Amino acid sequence: MKARVTVTLKNGVLDPQGKAIEGALKSLGVEGIGGVRQGKVFDIELDTADKSQAEASLKAACEKLLANTVIENYRIEIA
Amino acid sequence: MKARVTVTLKNGVLDPQGKAIEGALKSLGVEGIGGVRQGKVFDIELDTADKSQAEASLKAACEKLLANTVIENYRIEIA
Repeated sequence: MKARVTVTLKNGVLDPQGKAIEGALKSLGVEGIGGVRQGKVFDIELDTADKSQAEASLKAACEKLLANTVIENYRIEIA
Repeated sequence: MKARVTVTLKNGVLDPQGKAIEGALKSLGVEGIGGVRQGKVFDIELDTADKSQAEASLKAACEKLLANTVIENYRIEIA
């Protein structure tokens, strides 16, 4: 079973990396960019075929390691 | 107009960062993880309302800056 976890900064949290990317795109002449915020994506292969067990494992993974829940949101999609 | 660009490593490209995350999850006692590959996600705000122009800008952004197309794939989703 495959899953994708997307971790993004919460609204209101400053994102200097995104700002830097925005500036770089403007310098490179890419038109029409109003703002950029960067996040992370994790493609995870699961050993289990049980969806609820997979969800529990992924939630534990996010809470313990993948996301800093003080400043980041995470979203789990199981394919 | 909002868009999301997801950049992931191509198949066959080694991902030591993903391997490290996989090891860390096992150490933390998260069960059932078979493999992890890490990618990046960019949430982009576009100034234009023209979808084809937005697509062209995003493609340019990916090719010039966001993705290394030798080792990475990118996917553009316009919301």
